Amino acid sequence: MTVGIVGAGQLGRMLALAGYPLGLDFLCLDPSRDAPAGQVAPLLHGAFTDRRLLARLGQRCEVVTFDWENVPVTSLRSITRSHGARIAPPVAALATGQDRVAEKRLFERLGIPTTRWRAVSSRMQLEHAVEAIGLPGVLKTRRFGYDGKGQVVLRVAADTEAAWRALGNVPLLYEELVPFDCEVSIIGARSTRGELAIYPLCGNVHGAGVLRLTCAPFGPARWQTLAARYLTRLLTHFRYTGILTVEFFVRGGRLIANEMAPRVHNSGHWTIEGAATSQFENHLRAILGLPLGATRALGHSAMINLIGQLPAPSKVLSVEGVHLHDYGKEPRPGRKVGHLTVVEPTARARDARARRLLADLAVSARIP
Amino acid sequence: MTVGIVGAGQLGRMLALAGYPLGLDFLCLDPSRDAPAGQVAPLLHGAFTDRRLLARLGQRCEVVTFDWENVPVTSLRSITRSHGARIAPPVAALATGQDRVAEKRLFERLGIPTTRWRAVSSRMQLEHAVEAIGLPGVLKTRRFGYDGKGQVVLRVAADTEAAWRALGNVPLLYEELVPFDCEVSIIGARSTRGELAIYPLCGNVHGAGVLRLTCAPFGPARWQTLAARYLTRLLTHFRYTGILTVEFFVRGGRLIANEMAPRVHNSGHWTIEGAATSQFENHLRAILGLPLGATRALGHSAMINLIGQLPAPSKVLSVEGVHLHDYGKEPRPGRKVGHLTVVEPTARARDARARRLLADLAVSARIP
Repeated sequence: MTVGIVGAGQLGRMLALAGYPLGLDFLCLDPSRDAPAGQVAPLLHGAFTDRRLLARLGQRCEVVTFDWENVPVTSLRSITRSHGARIAPPVAALATGQDRVAEKRLFERLGIPTTRWRAVSSRMQLEHAVEAIGLPGVLKTRRFGYDGKGQVVLRVAADTEAAWRALGNVPLLYEELVPFDCEVSIIGARSTRGELAIYPLCGNVHGAGVLRLTCAPFGPARWQTLAARYLTRLLTHFRYTGILTVEFFVRGGRLIANEMAPRVHNSGHWTIEGAATSQFENHLRAILGLPLGATRALGHSAMINLIGQLPAPSKVLSVEGVHLHDYGKEPRPGRKVGHLTVVEPTARARDARARRLLADLAVSARIP
Repeated sequence: MTVGIVGAGQLGRMLALAGYPLGLDFLCLDPSRDAPAGQVAPLLHGAFTDRRLLARLGQRCEVVTFDWENVPVTSLRSITRSHGARIAPPVAALATGQDRVAEKRLFERLGIPTTRWRAVSSRMQLEHAVEAIGLPGVLKTRRFGYDGKGQVVLRVAADTEAAWRALGNVPLLYEELVPFDCEVSIIGARSTRGELAIYPLCGNVHGAGVLRLTCAPFGPARWQTLAARYLTRLLTHFRYTGILTVEFFVRGGRLIANEMAPRVHNSGHWTIEGAATSQFENHLRAILGLPLGATRALGHSAMINLIGQLPAPSKVLSVEGVHLHDYGKEPRPGRKVGHLTVVEPTARARDARARRLLADLAVSARIP
């Protein structure tokens, strides 16, 4: 059985590595010849819009998934239409995740608390949105945002001009900047047979818009219950198949949905060593109609992103119990090139180890 | 960094899957075009004695390892001689493991208790050996034995004739058949920097000469101490690099060495999910001079070999906590095509789960 992956980044790479023990084969499509997943699985090299390559993917794969949220929806639809290959997760969920306005509307429709927001498509609409929502706020592109890209924070009215100049040439959305206590994410799977499996809540720390650190399990049971309830509404709404992630701000005990990602997620990398079944394996099990694996945590995990360049393996591997994940990428400032995971029997031991690693790596993230 | 693997079986496959997260690349050599490791890593397709392919392996790899104990020693030596690539584990250990007489002599020289034995190269020597060692006993080929192949049990004097007819055309060894209480194995690594890391003892159950089931950790602390002491003598003797395995019979609290395998071992597959660092990752760390990873058990593991053909994944994966490893092999009677691992917080829970799986699979192995 061959699984197609549109996109061959680190998520595709970890999907393939999780799928080989299940006896699966993989075929990726990516515009980069040295993409991380292309180093461990066959790669069709070309644009995400290349109809010839999309056709080949559809012909050779029983099911096609994606590892990037900005894959063109039309590309995936062309695979289904012409070759009958199943796409999972559903294209409708990808389309919603690609449009911040559609996403906000869906959150509201499903009773999932989210930030106050206004769509903005003119300078005047921006002025009105700032008036209605207040300051501070964030101006975001409706589409193609990730890792904090396509976002400008407005702290005072005078910031409006610069923000408009930076982003004003595409459809936008203005939303309140939530002064959160912490950030969390919930990751869960729904299988083609309707089975659900939801992971323990993740506590996340971002720096410059990029995830730096995740600790899991995280937070009181009430947060877990709330987050799982909101996630389940989305999974059910889409008759979803695969892994879905929702990120929340936490403020005064309330969970406020920030965004959803219809794919395996950076904040779930700890599940490779830290949960009974990894998010990658459960994504594959879900889209193939296999029974889902247990999602329980095996201890207290911390995942630290390696950004820009990898530390010397001999250095990080000398720390007891550290698991290194090198994505096989060239170093570049701001780029996620790998991650480290530690799993400890107690939260205290986990925090101590994470603190030591952060110090060794000279990363200034606090433990959440 | 590219690691060469002579042999592309399931051990090579699991080595590659363990090495990708460390940022390693792999290149295998195997006479079978659809070998398990060749499905997840580039494959040079040809005989183990093909000098042209061996040369290419030596040129393209920093270090060359092997995943099969019957790889011709001369092939490995040719790589070192002509291309300077490092071979690990040491060829001397492989050569000893390939010759049961050399292996027995080394055990004796290092004070490692082993079975009583005699070399046999004629019908008359066999008669004398049976007289000296007694019955029951086992006649084995000196070379190229694995999974119980090349062995005949002699229970009464009349069996001598048939045994000689079955095996008498190659150099042999006759040894006592130890009426053991149980079988155990110890797996450990020595790195190029001389660092040692030894795993908890494994309790093994064989059927028809093939490993069926491993439980770990296993047995009293005294057995662990003894086994680790014997293993350390061998690691030190060879100035070994990589994973080395020794199998023992246990009888009346004594450990009696049966054989050694200079490679990752079937009885160590539980370490993928059941130990802080898998045997595959530690083999790579050891041969590359990286710090060795912790070998502690994360719980109580059972590993069950899947022999002949795989069960339906939807069936085995419906058992909570089961990890499936499909080697990507065609089904064939007696062939190891995959394995299952469970890791539970207690030995009792592990045994209950293993019993259920054995019943589901209609395998008649008892829990050791």
